[in-house]
Amino acid sequence: MREFKAVDYKAQHFGWTVDNKVATLTLNRPEKKNPLTFDSYGELRDLLNNLAYAKDVKAIVLTGAGGNFCSGGDVHEIIGPLIKMDMPGLLEFTRMTGDVVKAMRTAPQPIIAAIDGVCAGAGTMLACGSDIRLGTARSKVAFLFVRVGLAGADMGACTLLPRLIGMSRAAELLYTGRAMPGSEAERIGFYSSLHAPEDVLAAAVALAKNLADGPTFGHAMTKKMLWQEWSAALGECIEAEAQAQAICMQTKDFERAYHAFATKKSPVFEGD
Amino acid sequence: MREFKAVDYKAQHFGWTVDNKVATLTLNRPEKKNPLTFDSYGELRDLLNNLAYAKDVKAIVLTGAGGNFCSGGDVHEIIGPLIKMDMPGLLEFTRMTGDVVKAMRTAPQPIIAAIDGVCAGAGTMLACGSDIRLGTARSKVAFLFVRVGLAGADMGACTLLPRLIGMSRAAELLYTGRAMPGSEAERIGFYSSLHAPEDVLAAAVALAKNLADGPTFGHAMTKKMLWQEWSAALGECIEAEAQAQAICMQTKDFERAYHAFATKKSPVFEGD
Amino acid sequence: MREFKAVDYKAQHFGWTVDNKVATLTLNRPEKKNPLTFDSYGELRDLLNNLAYAKDVKAIVLTGAGGNFCSGGDVHEIIGPLIKMDMPGLLEFTRMTGDVVKAMRTAPQPIIAAIDGVCAGAGTMLACGSDIRLGTARSKVAFLFVRVGLAGADMGACTLLPRLIGMSRAAELLYTGRAMPGSEAERIGFYSSLHAPEDVLAAAVALAKNLADGPTFGHAMTKKMLWQEWSAALGECIEAEAQAQAICMQTKDFERAYHAFATKKSPVFEGD
Repeated sequence: MREFKAVDYKAQHFGWTVDNKVATLTLNRPEKKNPLTFDSYGELRDLLNNLAYAKDVKAIVLTGAGGNFCSGGDVHEIIGPLIKMDMPGLLEFTRMTGDVVKAMRTAPQPIIAAIDGVCAGAGTMLACGSDIRLGTARSKVAFLFVRVGLAGADMGACTLLPRLIGMSRAAELLYTGRAMPGSEAERIGFYSSLHAPEDVLAAAVALAKNLADGPTFGHAMTKKMLWQEWSAALGECIEAEAQAQAICMQTKDFERAYHAFATKKSPVFEGD
Repeated sequence: MREFKAVDYKAQHFGWTVDNKVATLTLNRPEKKNPLTFDSYGELRDLLNNLAYAKDVKAIVLTGAGGNFCSGGDVHEIIGPLIKMDMPGLLEFTRMTGDVVKAMRTAPQPIIAAIDGVCAGAGTMLACGSDIRLGTARSKVAFLFVRVGLAGADMGACTLLPRLIGMSRAAELLYTGRAMPGSEAERIGFYSSLHAPEDVLAAAVALAKNLADGPTFGHAMTKKMLWQEWSAALGECIEAEAQAQAICMQTKDFERAYHAFATKKSPVFEGD
Repeated sequence: MREFKAVDYKAQHFGWTVDNKVATLTLNRPEKKNPLTFDSYGELRDLLNNLAYAKDVKAIVLTGAGGNFCSGGDVHEIIGPLIKMDMPGLLEFTRMTGDVVKAMRTAPQPIIAAIDGVCAGAGTMLACGSDIRLGTARSKVAFLFVRVGLAGADMGACTLLPRLIGMSRAAELLYTGRAMPGSEAERIGFYSSLHAPEDVLAAAVALAKNLADGPTFGHAMTKKMLWQEWSAALGECIEAEAQAQAICMQTKDFERAYHAFATKKSPVFEGD
């Protein structure tokens, strides 16, 4: 089957490195706090879609350069052109941005976001599309779609944020577009943990490395099932997991774990 | 198209004022802690349904007079008659109460609840049906359906409360019917913030005014999508938002925001 | 209709006592921290399914003997045989474990888990399948499927845990399989409250007794609706509750409550 060599990929609109089964994707226009552009959205979508066929990457870190995560869609490079666009053009754009989140959820690798500084607009949805978020106290998370005259419904925000942190807190953030401080983001569970600015990327890489050294066939199934079960009935979800876990029980990693435990060793997983 | 003049509406069973695009709906039988009656349920449902056609109201504050929010269905005026009713009559009643919550979610205006004192029974569901809840430390929130011999399933409680604050906390509150103190309600995210009793209404009005001065076409779309995406699959939600946000990108408010930012001013939104 | 006499049931693979309408189910192989076995899974499923026909039990306490809740599937008794099984056998096993959770949700009685010490693997799903969880500070909750080379999708974990505590915290726990301390479990709402190790079972029994003395027809409807509404649209959930609550309004317990309140007494519920 087709394979995608992630290590050979040359990114044009962001940084991309692969080391030890962990890919680090860095939004890197720090002078503008790492905004997204038409080009970077498109490349993000395509790269993430290709990761389904990559065997050399088992976890992904998503971060921003220069002390900020992502300022969202650039005013001049995105919003300016959008206000001149007709409906087919607008829908092509909003589908492209939504497809980035879909691709984040479709990629089999867990995605860890390392968030410092500004995390705003579309940047918040890159955070929400990730599996786990690590942050800093000084970071600010602002779902500021409302501040540019739009709805809070952007890239799946009205389904993702309520599921992540509950509808009550999500609605207040989406309607007001206020900047949520990092300490609050950690308290309500949006961030899994807080780190010093100089440490947050290393912490995300360490967590990603830990997952990449784990039973990655199982991780990919966990991620798939979190998507599959988004809105299914409880009984059907339980049956879906019976099938999913039975599949995982035929992996070698399950056998490796058994033999390790039976001989009181730590299992070494290989992802198959 | 038919228009409803909210400012001219004369409420019979509660207070109703419209000022500066913000309507304030006050349950006002303070001597009984603002219970609901057959008449007030019906009027609430009908007024809220009409708000879809009101152009002079852009946000709603829901509160109670005299230091309490709402004590729920009155024992003598509601429960007494109900125990004598046949099934068609009972179902007509429970559908009417459920329709109040549906109407709260159908009205395009965000609803901010200002909650002090007693918030009990059906009153809790008026709180849950609101978009954002502000409370006081001394307030008590009690889903006390169980205390009158009924199920916790009332007016959508078993779907709304788990989504708002998580199923674990929701189940405990619904099964026990205990009174949750305001500080706990804030800690778990049921309230967005706590205020002094003399300030909570003003804080809700200020927040409502802030939303009413915002991109209200976008707010109405946010509210619509939170309803639409309640139980849809993740991928379908993302597509729904691509369409919804593309629509919002054709509003003048989006253009206003762009021109304001391009000239380093604050945007002035007009809701179209 | 067929009736199941819970008080006469002789459990083979765990402890089972019925006292005052409260059944206490105790996983009781304390020397191995109460693991589950093929036999105990099967007996749990069958007993829980029978509880739909039991009139002498109105609430259930689920606990473990000797200071631990449940260590999950035993390495030698479960994992060893599984790695030799073919797919039909594996699927028979995962369906059986999933059926235990389904049976926990189908049983009309609320289930209160009393959790001390180790709560790991399948043990966490017995906790998630319960209606309310009480814990101790020293307890550790570990969704450690990943540690044995499997997916976090086990017995409904990818639907239950996100609903209970939010997707953000759930994903981190499911991917890492880390041990969550009791204080964290309480802070995020997984536990409703923390108790001293010597008190947690008594607290669970007291809560169960309280529920068993309540309007148990209503409790069973609450539990049913929490399942029914798992993934239904908001409007349909509100209609479903209109029907459910109208049914409950024809119970004698509703009438008892009215007459008690009308005469300023406390209602005495009988569950019919």
